[in-house]
Amino acid sequence: MPARSLLVVGSLAFDTLETPSGHAADELGGSATYFSHSSAWLAPEVRLVGVVGKDFPKRHIVEFRDRGIDVSGIQVEGRGKTFRWHGRYGKDMNNAETVSVELNVFGKFEPKIPAPFRKSPFVFLATGSPRTQRAVLSQVDRPKFVLADTMNLWIETERPALLDLVHDVDGLILNNSELLQLSGEPNVVAGARWALAQGPSVVVVKKGEHGAMLFTEEAVCALPAYPLERIVDPTGAGDSFAGGFMGHLARAGSVTMQEMKRALVYGTVLASFACEDFGLRRLFGLSNREIESRVEEFAKVVSVDLDGRNARRRRK
Amino acid sequence: MPARSLLVVGSLAFDTLETPSGHAADELGGSATYFSHSSAWLAPEVRLVGVVGKDFPKRHIVEFRDRGIDVSGIQVEGRGKTFRWHGRYGKDMNNAETVSVELNVFGKFEPKIPAPFRKSPFVFLATGSPRTQRAVLSQVDRPKFVLADTMNLWIETERPALLDLVHDVDGLILNNSELLQLSGEPNVVAGARWALAQGPSVVVVKKGEHGAMLFTEEAVCALPAYPLERIVDPTGAGDSFAGGFMGHLARAGSVTMQEMKRALVYGTVLASFACEDFGLRRLFGLSNREIESRVEEFAKVVSVDLDGRNARRRRK
Repeated sequence: MPARSLLVVGSLAFDTLETPSGHAADELGGSATYFSHSSAWLAPEVRLVGVVGKDFPKRHIVEFRDRGIDVSGIQVEGRGKTFRWHGRYGKDMNNAETVSVELNVFGKFEPKIPAPFRKSPFVFLATGSPRTQRAVLSQVDRPKFVLADTMNLWIETERPALLDLVHDVDGLILNNSELLQLSGEPNVVAGARWALAQGPSVVVVKKGEHGAMLFTEEAVCALPAYPLERIVDPTGAGDSFAGGFMGHLARAGSVTMQEMKRALVYGTVLASFACEDFGLRRLFGLSNREIESRVEEFAKVVSVDLDGRNARRRRK
Repeated sequence: MPARSLLVVGSLAFDTLETPSGHAADELGGSATYFSHSSAWLAPEVRLVGVVGKDFPKRHIVEFRDRGIDVSGIQVEGRGKTFRWHGRYGKDMNNAETVSVELNVFGKFEPKIPAPFRKSPFVFLATGSPRTQRAVLSQVDRPKFVLADTMNLWIETERPALLDLVHDVDGLILNNSELLQLSGEPNVVAGARWALAQGPSVVVVKKGEHGAMLFTEEAVCALPAYPLERIVDPTGAGDSFAGGFMGHLARAGSVTMQEMKRALVYGTVLASFACEDFGLRRLFGLSNREIESRVEEFAKVVSVDLDGRNARRRRK
């Protein structure tokens, strides 16, 4: 079903995670990993491109395959080690402190899109150097919708290349502080207007526990996060969000405003699951029934019935 | 129409305001002022109790009266001056720096609720010493719904009296950082659960540009803020929010979950207007048509149609 194929290019990693809920070492992580395991719950065909070292266990490849993710784009660098990140969260789970980072084989990642992947209508460029993201763009054949993520590092160090990339994608997704940093605007709404003027037709702003917003020239959509009482590990929540978002669009085969709003709900729901356990554990243990049930619960959280709102009732 | 009367007790003040948009001196301000001018757009009868000095110009009294606000509870201390606050906002408009504060007559405020005000079914205890708020509670006659606001100062200095008050009100409204401070919990959802366990049946959490949440034992409602591209002055947004919230409940004469969700929308909309100009200027210049029109626009921002969301369309 190539008309709904979803290609993701990004990192595969091992994470060591410290949060107030505990500690986990050598967890499977990486932006493309979270994205693909999240989107695979919705999208009919997920195609993963990334790089790992010879230390990457076969069982993770099996896990991808078990979820129907096409792993033929995973490049194995026999002489290197997989990207490693060690992060620590304090009580405020909105920001991680990087304890250590070893880029390893990801530092020299040159994505090669396998020929059968080049015709993918939906493409997610996970955060990475804008040059790497550009290299992907130049290998794909007229996709229907390309969404690019970025982060503070690239805004600081590769701004011209990043703006150049942003000009050529359909959608930009980033978090609220990154949007303010990139745009220089004082608030998210003004920042999104600025970003839309750079080229993309859609800007998606991730605000962590405060939800997400979607901007086009014509419309604004804003949704809160799914209210979680306990956040075990927020790592990968943003990529799981993007996975739910793009996964729904790929499933729908459409990028109308209605589908993008629904996609925002799926992003919100997948991100909430991702936070409930360390690493990808909760995403592995999910079911479609759980996802749909939370989508419906979330709809109740944001629903307001305004009909007859200004009728004054008769006094009893 | 006493069955829908709304009583507010809080501060009246003069504010000097500095924001990135400009500067305004001696603006009418104060929690009860914002609340009453906001709620009066919705509630059939708003009753204001507060204290001013002899420097308080007659024209502000006329402004209250022109909006149908009953000012017979304003106490004039002939030998004192009105509360003054000077605040400054940087680029991040979420927090004001207090340049100076002169409590003046508000420092010794002993609210006296006029006899005709004592039977008010809806009561808002604007932020103030929990002892002062308790003094109001002891003078009102079996109200239907009492909402209390508080702030960091009282959480730090009068915690036992505050918890005692919270135990005896129907609703608690406060901002997210105050909720975390009060509860000691790491996130808003856990904090709200903690607060509900202290007594109130409703907890409303104001998150500024990130919207608001409402918690009861049975339900959670979360809404984003109305997306504003330009915030001129956020002073009084929280009290304007509370005014829209209580104004709608008083108009409806009901505190069902449905009306509380609608009330949250009105709070959101009134708060957004308050931010569009210095002080109360925008609230003065409003119209019911503008309010209802923004309510409808806001409904579009949060609306998601989920019916048929997981249908896969036929390929073209």
